Amino acid sequence: SRSINLAVIPGDGIGQEVVAQGLKVLNSVLPQDVKLETKEYDLGAQRWHRTGETLPDAELEALKRHDAILLGAIGDPSVPSGVLERGLLLKLRFAFDHFINLRPSKLFPNTATPLAGRPEIDFVVVREGTEGPYTGNGGSLRTGTAHEVATEVSLNTAYGVERVVRDAFERAAARPRRKLTLVHKNNVLVYAGHLWKNTFDRVAAEYPSVTTDYLHVDAATIFFVTQPERFDVIVTDNLFGDILTDLAAAVSGGIGLAASGNINPTGAFPSMFEPVHGSAPDIAGQGKADPTATILSVALLLRHLGYESEAARIETAVSADLAERSADTVRTTDEIGDALALRVAG
Amino acid sequence: SRSINLAVIPGDGIGQEVVAQGLKVLNSVLPQDVKLETKEYDLGAQRWHRTGETLPDAELEALKRHDAILLGAIGDPSVPSGVLERGLLLKLRFAFDHFINLRPSKLFPNTATPLAGRPEIDFVVVREGTEGPYTGNGGSLRTGTAHEVATEVSLNTAYGVERVVRDAFERAAARPRRKLTLVHKNNVLVYAGHLWKNTFDRVAAEYPSVTTDYLHVDAATIFFVTQPERFDVIVTDNLFGDILTDLAAAVSGGIGLAASGNINPTGAFPSMFEPVHGSAPDIAGQGKADPTATILSVALLLRHLGYESEAARIETAVSADLAERSADTVRTTDEIGDALALRVAG
Ligand SMILES: CC(C)[C@H](C(=O)O)[C@@H](O)C(=O)O
Ligand SMILES: CC(C)[C@H](C(=O)O)[C@@H](O)C(=O)O
Repeated sequence: SRSINLAVIPGDGIGQEVVAQGLKVLNSVLPQDVKLETKEYDLGAQRWHRTGETLPDAELEALKRHDAILLGAIGDPSVPSGVLERGLLLKLRFAFDHFINLRPSKLFPNTATPLAGRPEIDFVVVREGTEGPYTGNGGSLRTGTAHEVATEVSLNTAYGVERVVRDAFERAAARPRRKLTLVHKNNVLVYAGHLWKNTFDRVAAEYPSVTTDYLHVDAATIFFVTQPERFDVIVTDNLFGDILTDLAAAVSGGIGLAASGNINPTGAFPSMFEPVHGSAPDIAGQGKADPTATILSVALLLRHLGYESEAARIETAVSADLAERSADTVRTTDEIGDALALRVAG
Repeated sequence: SRSINLAVIPGDGIGQEVVAQGLKVLNSVLPQDVKLETKEYDLGAQRWHRTGETLPDAELEALKRHDAILLGAIGDPSVPSGVLERGLLLKLRFAFDHFINLRPSKLFPNTATPLAGRPEIDFVVVREGTEGPYTGNGGSLRTGTAHEVATEVSLNTAYGVERVVRDAFERAAARPRRKLTLVHKNNVLVYAGHLWKNTFDRVAAEYPSVTTDYLHVDAATIFFVTQPERFDVIVTDNLFGDILTDLAAAVSGGIGLAASGNINPTGAFPSMFEPVHGSAPDIAGQGKADPTATILSVALLLRHLGYESEAARIETAVSADLAERSADTVRTTDEIGDALALRVAG
């Protein structure tokens, strides 16, 4: 009999609320014969305030033994910027070698977009997750003085770039439009840029069915708002991917709908699924958070674990739910979760 | 009697065409008693193909003796990516210590925006121009092999950050809304981020009349499309400023209207004014390019040289021209230049 041994990190702010709905839908969509075990991990701002710990080794080890991780949101204004991000969220992404940060964007019917004319939006960003300016390399000299020098180093390896580029080509080749756009800034960041571009061009030769394109990151932001329909799959660096996927979320229904997967496709470590949005402390505990992004992240989780039809059922349910909701009814976090749990029920 | 000794670098693609209109309007707006001298510099793709040179020392020296520089656009697909950008455009910005890269965004009446509901947009990005990931620091090891490592180093100094932050506070204090937003990514890029944030907070204490705000760069892109009216003045790093100003241009009338100034406010070196758009080789020589961005850059140039009323006249003319143009008449580059030259004529 099948089983899923899931680690749950609700985290901070609205994390707890949205994760509860994600689990509700997960329970509802899974066939009877799949045994779901969940274990909650108390990590985030409260834990840090209480114990000073962000991610103790013992918990990192324990997390390793799960099939996957569902994460709500990390971060709180009461914690110095960077402490939880680097000590917990990024630590997990790096420790578990989540080199694919998968972020699909789809403009569902009947959802808000700031763009006039509601263009067709249906693309996926394959963001590199373990290199670039996110490696924590850098430092500061004469800190706090008038002579301070602070550096940030973007690290890029052939190994790291090639594996994400290959993954993106595979994904592009499997989609109907078969188009892959590399986004970088190789006219300025020439060293990293050449590594990315050369790798991309070399791998492209193995995928003659995939149409390729290159855009500088600044130009890409223009097309995100003027011609988002031109994108199918995008592959990009960790930082550019961070920036572009928030913009992508904004134009395709808002941050309340944007799902993501931090994936290690080799299976060597558990992959981690989380909404793109943050902990939103301003609305925490009020039942106002939209759990849809978390629920769509559960779909990505299921797909990653091989439950394709269950994943698709969640996505279809979300699409139907959005299409049928009335613009003037404001639903609570719980009501949205209930509605989706009902729709996916077998 | 007054005089302006202007260097003109038409550059590549549509550069020549748009610069011609910029000069036309400049000639038209200047009072009789101002002697305008212009000297054209043949720099860009053609020069590089002919001689292999991007910016010879002699020309750099000669450029130094001008009051200001008007630049069209640099870059051509026939030149390897980075050669002209780093050897010419960025070389000028760095050699002349253009630490203020000023990029105003205003949604004029009757202009295209991809945003539904035409929000009010009237902000200015003060982009740092001489540091960050643009310094050319970095390298690659085992280049072209499966073991390549490529780095890019973002350099940030207290000196460099403080001068641009101060400039931004001055600009914010002089505007009616008096609001300044710092954009960075200090939850990940903690070394550079702390230097920027600490400097910003310290200088803020000297400007009690200015309301301040901080946004991560990813969140800033969301607000650019959902709430652009929240911005007044933005100060940010060189790379974040590059990305955000293309997005700003896209939402506020398009890249055909976005002006910029690479400014050294000390006057130690000539400042350089250029449209944000590139050389657009696909439409070069066809009279299709919109010269408005260059003409608005001429306004920034005049303001920098102390010709405030002439600068304002150009901006008023552009606003009136856009308001009165009919959506179905497509005007040539030349016609737009003529119309604006006529409007600003004294
Ligand atoms: C919270 C932060 C560290 C994180 C990132 O920069 O990756 C977030 O913005 C995201 O996109 O998941
Ligand atoms: C051409 C390129 C080097 C330049 C930059 O990145 O600054 C351009 O994008 C700009 O914004 O002026």
